[in-house]
Amino acid sequence: MINSIYVDNIIKTALLEDINYLDTATDYLIDDDQVNTARFLAKDSGVLCGINIALRVFEILQPNGFEATVYKHDGDILEKGDIIAEIKGKTRTILKGERTALNLIQHMSGVATATNRAVKLIEGTNASIADTRKTLPGLRPLQKYAVTVGGGRNHRYNLSDAAMLKDNHVDAGGGISAAVAKLKKKLGHMTKVELEVRNLDELGQALEAGVDVIMLDNMSVEMMREAVEITNGRALLEASGGITDETLRAIAETGVDIISMGAITHSVKAFDISLKIAD
Amino acid sequence: MINSIYVDNIIKTALLEDINYLDTATDYLIDDDQVNTARFLAKDSGVLCGINIALRVFEILQPNGFEATVYKHDGDILEKGDIIAEIKGKTRTILKGERTALNLIQHMSGVATATNRAVKLIEGTNASIADTRKTLPGLRPLQKYAVTVGGGRNHRYNLSDAAMLKDNHVDAGGGISAAVAKLKKKLGHMTKVELEVRNLDELGQALEAGVDVIMLDNMSVEMMREAVEITNGRALLEASGGITDETLRAIAETGVDIISMGAITHSVKAFDISLKIAD
Amino acid sequence: MINSIYVDNIIKTALLEDINYLDTATDYLIDDDQVNTARFLAKDSGVLCGINIALRVFEILQPNGFEATVYKHDGDILEKGDIIAEIKGKTRTILKGERTALNLIQHMSGVATATNRAVKLIEGTNASIADTRKTLPGLRPLQKYAVTVGGGRNHRYNLSDAAMLKDNHVDAGGGISAAVAKLKKKLGHMTKVELEVRNLDELGQALEAGVDVIMLDNMSVEMMREAVEITNGRALLEASGGITDETLRAIAETGVDIISMGAITHSVKAFDISLKIAD
Amino acid sequence: MINSIYVDNIIKTALLEDINYLDTATDYLIDDDQVNTARFLAKDSGVLCGINIALRVFEILQPNGFEATVYKHDGDILEKGDIIAEIKGKTRTILKGERTALNLIQHMSGVATATNRAVKLIEGTNASIADTRKTLPGLRPLQKYAVTVGGGRNHRYNLSDAAMLKDNHVDAGGGISAAVAKLKKKLGHMTKVELEVRNLDELGQALEAGVDVIMLDNMSVEMMREAVEITNGRALLEASGGITDETLRAIAETGVDIISMGAITHSVKAFDISLKIAD
Amino acid sequence: MINSIYVDNIIKTALLEDINYLDTATDYLIDDDQVNTARFLAKDSGVLCGINIALRVFEILQPNGFEATVYKHDGDILEKGDIIAEIKGKTRTILKGERTALNLIQHMSGVATATNRAVKLIEGTNASIADTRKTLPGLRPLQKYAVTVGGGRNHRYNLSDAAMLKDNHVDAGGGISAAVAKLKKKLGHMTKVELEVRNLDELGQALEAGVDVIMLDNMSVEMMREAVEITNGRALLEASGGITDETLRAIAETGVDIISMGAITHSVKAFDISLKIAD
Amino acid sequence: MINSIYVDNIIKTALLEDINYLDTATDYLIDDDQVNTARFLAKDSGVLCGINIALRVFEILQPNGFEATVYKHDGDILEKGDIIAEIKGKTRTILKGERTALNLIQHMSGVATATNRAVKLIEGTNASIADTRKTLPGLRPLQKYAVTVGGGRNHRYNLSDAAMLKDNHVDAGGGISAAVAKLKKKLGHMTKVELEVRNLDELGQALEAGVDVIMLDNMSVEMMREAVEITNGRALLEASGGITDETLRAIAETGVDIISMGAITHSVKAFDISLKIAD
Repeated sequence: MINSIYVDNIIKTALLEDINYLDTATDYLIDDDQVNTARFLAKDSGVLCGINIALRVFEILQPNGFEATVYKHDGDILEKGDIIAEIKGKTRTILKGERTALNLIQHMSGVATATNRAVKLIEGTNASIADTRKTLPGLRPLQKYAVTVGGGRNHRYNLSDAAMLKDNHVDAGGGISAAVAKLKKKLGHMTKVELEVRNLDELGQALEAGVDVIMLDNMSVEMMREAVEITNGRALLEASGGITDETLRAIAETGVDIISMGAITHSVKAFDISLKIAD
Repeated sequence: MINSIYVDNIIKTALLEDINYLDTATDYLIDDDQVNTARFLAKDSGVLCGINIALRVFEILQPNGFEATVYKHDGDILEKGDIIAEIKGKTRTILKGERTALNLIQHMSGVATATNRAVKLIEGTNASIADTRKTLPGLRPLQKYAVTVGGGRNHRYNLSDAAMLKDNHVDAGGGISAAVAKLKKKLGHMTKVELEVRNLDELGQALEAGVDVIMLDNMSVEMMREAVEITNGRALLEASGGITDETLRAIAETGVDIISMGAITHSVKAFDISLKIAD
Repeated sequence: MINSIYVDNIIKTALLEDINYLDTATDYLIDDDQVNTARFLAKDSGVLCGINIALRVFEILQPNGFEATVYKHDGDILEKGDIIAEIKGKTRTILKGERTALNLIQHMSGVATATNRAVKLIEGTNASIADTRKTLPGLRPLQKYAVTVGGGRNHRYNLSDAAMLKDNHVDAGGGISAAVAKLKKKLGHMTKVELEVRNLDELGQALEAGVDVIMLDNMSVEMMREAVEITNGRALLEASGGITDETLRAIAETGVDIISMGAITHSVKAFDISLKIAD
Repeated sequence: MINSIYVDNIIKTALLEDINYLDTATDYLIDDDQVNTARFLAKDSGVLCGINIALRVFEILQPNGFEATVYKHDGDILEKGDIIAEIKGKTRTILKGERTALNLIQHMSGVATATNRAVKLIEGTNASIADTRKTLPGLRPLQKYAVTVGGGRNHRYNLSDAAMLKDNHVDAGGGISAAVAKLKKKLGHMTKVELEVRNLDELGQALEAGVDVIMLDNMSVEMMREAVEITNGRALLEASGGITDETLRAIAETGVDIISMGAITHSVKAFDISLKIAD
Repeated sequence: MINSIYVDNIIKTALLEDINYLDTATDYLIDDDQVNTARFLAKDSGVLCGINIALRVFEILQPNGFEATVYKHDGDILEKGDIIAEIKGKTRTILKGERTALNLIQHMSGVATATNRAVKLIEGTNASIADTRKTLPGLRPLQKYAVTVGGGRNHRYNLSDAAMLKDNHVDAGGGISAAVAKLKKKLGHMTKVELEVRNLDELGQALEAGVDVIMLDNMSVEMMREAVEITNGRALLEASGGITDETLRAIAETGVDIISMGAITHSVKAFDISLKIAD
Repeated sequence: MINSIYVDNIIKTALLEDINYLDTATDYLIDDDQVNTARFLAKDSGVLCGINIALRVFEILQPNGFEATVYKHDGDILEKGDIIAEIKGKTRTILKGERTALNLIQHMSGVATATNRAVKLIEGTNASIADTRKTLPGLRPLQKYAVTVGGGRNHRYNLSDAAMLKDNHVDAGGGISAAVAKLKKKLGHMTKVELEVRNLDELGQALEAGVDVIMLDNMSVEMMREAVEITNGRALLEASGGITDETLRAIAETGVDIISMGAITHSVKAFDISLKIAD
């Protein structure tokens, strides 16, 4: 689903990093016409993400004759030992692409799995898990997509596609009310406005100014509960800052609409998947 | 120290991800001539890495008139609250570059800090911590550099600059001895050869074949100790696979030379650093 | 204001198109140390856009010693004969950059001027002029920015940052109500939804489904007036399709919020600006 | 015919502009295996240009299984309602590529149509219509090609492939005769020289200096007629500057060889073509 | 003089080839603040070319504080031992850029020197030495420029900027006369036409067809002499194929206008220049 | 075998150099559906290198329907007149790709042939021929590969993958012993260290410091012989500097392990191969 032009670019970047000119061990020892099959295996349990992108690595290295059978798809729950896909192609292709393919699928599945764990923790509440712009340089499209695969929802993609006002914007704009008014006069009609607030007074001003989303920045659970009551549906409320697995459910139960978490993209544990060449 | 052409490229990639055309909130609300100072602050304790790269983000956005005073340098130990650097420039520059700069410095410091924790755990032994090729696509130069800043040492950079023989290479080459011999005839004289072994029998063959480095793949601590004895300095020994903080010291004490860890690059926890605009 | 990384990229693309290796006439006839001043002059009346980008062409060609004095800024109204800016630099720089700089500023000012004419035609109504995705490949950031300079507002930047449902989406989603509901469950909370309708029945369904914006596709002025009444502020209404200078005011007076026009980006008349080298 | 490497590059640039990561409406609502047919339809009369490039957009998005039947080719005259081509592929492919394909074909057909109108206006004379370097950044190859499809001829491609002397070159070179002589000594033997003149005196000098082409800059029709007589075939004469549809034929009838027009590339009206998905 | 955008691109390409991430010896042993001076020295006699490009390597690596004094300029004759330029900058800059700078200047000076030797061999005749499209991929701008510095003249830059008809073009076009006529109807007025002929009969046809340049392909000196006589100034004559230092003067003395030589770009001997760091 | 991402990039770079937009002669005279066969022919004797890369040029230009039969492979010895490969495709494809394909294969075969001549000259000794970093910008992967095809071995690929200490490094590091020790503490365990020495005293220090390879810089044959004796297998010895065909064998017979030659990459004579279109 991700823009295929971007996907090919990131794969080519990775392959240029990993091979200056030759893969000496492979090029000097393995004949060009040797063919093997290999299997992607889950070594842990979690949510799969990136299988098509991992396979694309090999297609790019070997445009003709590379075959793949896919058993698990993005979003599927994996258990340790599951066969995700089986590939067949030149042994050289498999060995040259292996590390790049694994680096991609492990990271993406890591994002999806982390997101999904958070989603599960707040199941039954009205809140959603959202990502942030705290992504790794060059990998934002992969990470944002993986968040959706894990059941999360995407916050704004970047600085251009939604407006978030922080205190510096508010100060420069002459206070919440004036800043929001000034901004709305220029902003496109398809662009939402979010405002960051630190207390209930600012919340009140934000509601009056008529923003689409209000970010409750580092508020206590108690204060969030009050904010939900005061807001009463007039804007979406986003909880943000200092959220841990321990506090997640309590926050969700305050009635906020969105809980945004940087950790699902900036502190990702790779999900363990291996590629085993069959005999 | 990292290739500055690469550094500029990754920063430009990140800025193109983060701004399609305008930063609407900033461009519509903040005057082009407003100037601010801001400070990079440590919010945790660990090893700093990437401060020059973070500052480069702002220099690229504002070629003239941007100023920075650096208080902490790559490799310095940070304590929570430390001021890392102070910058002064257009408010627009600061707000547009903030997220990209933080994403870079937090990830790099995360790598350095994770590496350093492992290094500390084996202090006093003869072993070194090394990274792997399990890096994030497009970020290998940053990650490899951050490993050295954390006190680790770099494994091979990629498939071209050192030869690592796995079982498929050995099989295709006709066994350990034949494969190594065949490879050495073609390999450049500046290129080292490493062989992956799973038991002491293979270790013996590897030593006989005369490789530079032998990777002990997923061996028990006991077997590693035997391997060290058998090897007796004839090759470097690298422990790899399934290493955790708990087992790290025991492994180092077996006498292996290198312990390579994928987690320090593929499962990095961002190190918390903030950029606070001064009043 | 536009992302400076993008600006430099488009300028470099243009300069690589315009010079394979040498500018023979200039390189063979004009000494490297000859210096001249030159002036950007308006040859028509309209809205200036792109002066900083035009100047950036010369700075890129001559990183040191190039000087510029700017008399008119983006958004200023130009009259024929106005001096926009005066530059001083190597004659080679001026001659090599002239065409690229003019191609950029003339096109951008053309977009701003066309937008502004439409904006003027609906002055006093509540409607705004918006652009579309009907932009020229590679030039979207410049064009979108020029629209804002001309007083227009930006529609969604691209397929990722807002969702627009056309009949194919609706059909695949099982009708308006089901499609909108299905989409909203996945869409990020910062993303608006627009639905294209062709009659008042669809309008009713769209309002019930709760979309942010409704596009009235090729409706008569009469039907638009009815649509405004029915909607009664529950969603933004966007008029689109077959709009001409003649019908623009009548449409605006129906009370629609937005009138989107492809012509201001896909059928732009260059605004005439010249660069005259002084004696 | 256009360099296919360039064509793929401009298409990829456009697709990266139009999709940050997902086309949310399409990716969330339309199944990956849904297939549709669609037709490119002319909505006006003019000259078709760019059909292969429009189709290439979809091939790039969907390398396998995309089909197209082409009914009209570049250079064909279109009447309103004509079916240009029919495509069949994934609905996702069609919806993601639609806008980019239309932006390309509409602009290129716009250039070809504008060129052709000028060509028709001077039919029967000896003059040809030529383009200029007044092209849109990044689109020169498409625009230059479209001019030829419309029946026009290409002026020099860029500053490297032919030499055009303006007054600054002449001044720096010590007058027309000296400048041309100096230039010819260095210029490659495959490179033509054109000189811009503003009056008949300069014309005489240009003829004496032996240039290949003389540009009559902003001359009256009368003066052009004299210039043709004086020149008498010793050089090609190019009329340039301030040419309108009204004056075009009179200029052509003076006997000049070339009439160059910036408007056919810098002020293009998109030619209306739609892509209709069949039921 | 060469397009500076291209120059920076080729330098960056070279530096990315030469440094994956660190220059380990330099980064680990030499302090960032160590400064040195160094001198470019000629180790042979020949024609200098590329000094500005060599210096640009260091400016790119170290944007601030790098200094250079240039004693010899492009086109100057070098004798062994000549100091070409003296540079001062960070020792790290000098060591990292040294090889790339030398690779560029040695190759470019090699082209200029080889060209100049040929030019000298035909001194006093009316013939000029020209290059061909037999250039090294990615280096054409540097090589074409170096040819001019050596006193040669550039043949067409590429397939777009002049038309050269070979037998396949002629056959497809229905014979020399028909092919040239057909081509001329479409070709731009700034584009010259060259035709390759193998005998005097074809020469006659070419002259009748009215081409600008005729390539005498692999003709004997005798036949060339006849060709010159027959042509009698009606077209430029270019000798091509199998030309050696031994036959060069004899060919030039036949009266041909141009002698084109692939060897000056495809078989270049590097000109020996060293960079010596002063104590 | 070379990284196919790189191969496609260099080919695209070359094709963008060679075609701005059209190949006018070909596009205007030859029908798109004309098909031809053509043959790559050796015009000299030597070692073939780059046939797959030459063929890739045509596949990139014509993704469907292009056919090739390969008779000679990389490393094969060519005699004048040998048919290397036969291709069949659109005549336009063949004519547009011909020069780029030949430029690549001629240069690569030139490198392989030059390398092989040196290899032959030292046959029977224990020495190997190695390349250097004296490569042409952008072409290093092709050149390094061609060296291996000619029977040579690759020296380090770049500044990152092996450490070479020259006098500046040694001085900054506090003498040979201290510098090597300091470096080894930081260097990765897969990275070899080479030290450049100019006399036997330095050789002694180098051996004591324990480097992997010692470069004997511009030593006399006599001194090299002594160096071999002294070293006695404790390090690899590399002869470098001022080596000619005349001195090559004598140097090899001293017992050095490696003889590195810049000329095989920086001063390459193109190997003559033609592409003949069949009738």
